[in-house]
Amino acid sequence: METENPAAGEDSKQSYTQVGKLGEFGLIKRLTEKIVLKQPSTIKGVGDDAAVIEPGKDEVILLSTDMLAEGVHFDLTYTPLRHLGYKAVSVNVSDICAMNGTPTQLTVSIGISNQFSVEALEELYKGMRYACEEYGVDLVGGDTISSNSGMVISISILGKAKKNEVTYRNTAQVGDIVCVSGDLGAAYSGLLILNRGKKMFANDPEAKPDLTGYDYVLKRQLMPQARVDIIALFKTHTIIPTAMIDISDGLSSEVHHLCDPLTPRGGTGGIGCIIDEERIPINENVKKVAEEFSKGDTSGKNSAMSFALSGGEDYELLFTLSKKDFEKLKSSDKITRIGEIVTPAQGVSFRDKTGKIHPLSAKGWDSFLGEN
Amino acid sequence: METENPAAGEDSKQSYTQVGKLGEFGLIKRLTEKIVLKQPSTIKGVGDDAAVIEPGKDEVILLSTDMLAEGVHFDLTYTPLRHLGYKAVSVNVSDICAMNGTPTQLTVSIGISNQFSVEALEELYKGMRYACEEYGVDLVGGDTISSNSGMVISISILGKAKKNEVTYRNTAQVGDIVCVSGDLGAAYSGLLILNRGKKMFANDPEAKPDLTGYDYVLKRQLMPQARVDIIALFKTHTIIPTAMIDISDGLSSEVHHLCDPLTPRGGTGGIGCIIDEERIPINENVKKVAEEFSKGDTSGKNSAMSFALSGGEDYELLFTLSKKDFEKLKSSDKITRIGEIVTPAQGVSFRDKTGKIHPLSAKGWDSFLGEN
Repeated sequence: METENPAAGEDSKQSYTQVGKLGEFGLIKRLTEKIVLKQPSTIKGVGDDAAVIEPGKDEVILLSTDMLAEGVHFDLTYTPLRHLGYKAVSVNVSDICAMNGTPTQLTVSIGISNQFSVEALEELYKGMRYACEEYGVDLVGGDTISSNSGMVISISILGKAKKNEVTYRNTAQVGDIVCVSGDLGAAYSGLLILNRGKKMFANDPEAKPDLTGYDYVLKRQLMPQARVDIIALFKTHTIIPTAMIDISDGLSSEVHHLCDPLTPRGGTGGIGCIIDEERIPINENVKKVAEEFSKGDTSGKNSAMSFALSGGEDYELLFTLSKKDFEKLKSSDKITRIGEIVTPAQGVSFRDKTGKIHPLSAKGWDSFLGEN
Repeated sequence: METENPAAGEDSKQSYTQVGKLGEFGLIKRLTEKIVLKQPSTIKGVGDDAAVIEPGKDEVILLSTDMLAEGVHFDLTYTPLRHLGYKAVSVNVSDICAMNGTPTQLTVSIGISNQFSVEALEELYKGMRYACEEYGVDLVGGDTISSNSGMVISISILGKAKKNEVTYRNTAQVGDIVCVSGDLGAAYSGLLILNRGKKMFANDPEAKPDLTGYDYVLKRQLMPQARVDIIALFKTHTIIPTAMIDISDGLSSEVHHLCDPLTPRGGTGGIGCIIDEERIPINENVKKVAEEFSKGDTSGKNSAMSFALSGGEDYELLFTLSKKDFEKLKSSDKITRIGEIVTPAQGVSFRDKTGKIHPLSAKGWDSFLGEN
């Protein structure tokens, strides 16, 4: 089994084969022959009409899916294919984490032009296999089709959890502590750096964008980690969060999902929430990028806080804990308390450093973002 | 719950809204609000980071996925969106049938241009909902993204089966009877008719292709039915096929899959197979289309037999039964005995009407198809 780190760079390949020349079955064979199944629950992986999975006793199955399109979710001009493969898996694993589950199996469907090279597709699969191995997930099926346009990747993932451990996004209670894992705004900072480099290159093809010193934010953008470690931390402390969601669209938007009126299956009515500006964890490297980009810009759009609230793609976990459970975790440096669940009448709000409270729109709190 | 038949034609809509104007969450709400969950195993459908499914006792989970791209798998110039939605679901349900399972839940990811209308997307969903209802499957999640190009649909489906009832494609034994459900070549015949109509229209936009009399083949192309009834028939007779696959690429190709060397989990070595030309079930309507298209064509490419062997998209089931089990089903008009499993030394072959035996390539037996 290949375990090369996708960050190690791509091989210098000598020959290229067009996908169209290999034929469907040849291509499937080439892409899947290196797959090793490790989940005891996988009875049959790639190679039949469906994969066969044996669920554990008293376990429920979690199912999630994400589609990524070239030019919308990723830019192949600066995204190495291995990183893209890794990220596509992480994004899906993150959804299973957000349910307090363990990822187990996934399928990968890819639409690509017939002109695409098999070797390039193998790079993508290498990144996916590496991620699968890291997360302990089996790649059990998929589809590779020719599309008349850019690349499209669709991954579906299965996970498992004990029924009583499944954590929904809208089941927090008034008085619960709101926490996030890691820090926020880094993935968006990385995107700004990559887009700046792309522009420089477009203006002057001889230019070599200097990416030195941006490792942290670039890695967060190109190779995000799903927080399986946080789920393990909960288990170690026998904690079940009262609610959880992963941060794919920026903190503000996800906080609004947390406070959505509960669904018929979960109860009735909504909740409110106060997020404390000064508690939001932001890495020093994000602050540096924000400083660079806000020079001469008075819109507030390029503040580190705006990256954290609206940037997205951090794939950290946003969750709520009872006060009692929070006490068990408060010494962990992996999580930060950022606010509290309040009554619905208090709405979804943001307490700035001066103590002033603002309504928090799903797009953020800065006025440039509109809506508030 | 809307139960309108997708074949009933599209509504005449008064207003159109571009997908891009509705926003991601507005769009999801509009597309999913009519979904009704019916599977007792579905604990949570659309609306969280993952769907939650409670497997039945002693049941295994089947997982399959298929991606369809505009211009490759479907042509929107003659495919009504409701039919397309119905077909996309059928294709996936068929994979679960091919494992001798019962379909239970699915997720739908769609990539479309921002210019696409919400109303058109609703038509597509209407067809999918109709199919879901017909097959008793819950739509429990998905993703709708903008893509820079044509439409891409990716569906992942879950099914269930008792562990000992799961039927793989490569576990037939020498002496088993080879059978198919329904009849073959109809979907391809329908495609020929539609493509001819499209060409006529391209040459003369005033032309109205006359599709009268082609109902059977058009329906088989546009709205194929997954053969859940055959799986029910097996259960009624307490039969477990010795091997099974669905016919998506044409009979010849699927027969080769049946005869692939067994995988490490299933045993070793391959098997051979003899298919009898005169037993292959072909509907009268297919023969009529073949007659029309073969006028003046001596290649044999447009023979009804060639449609059956190489046409594809019939979504019938190809399966093998022990002689004893075949006796229980032989009076059923839903299935036809078409051949027998023989030793690997006899290869994969085809006995023509004169009794002469030809090697059968994965592409068919006619010489124009190459390889034999």
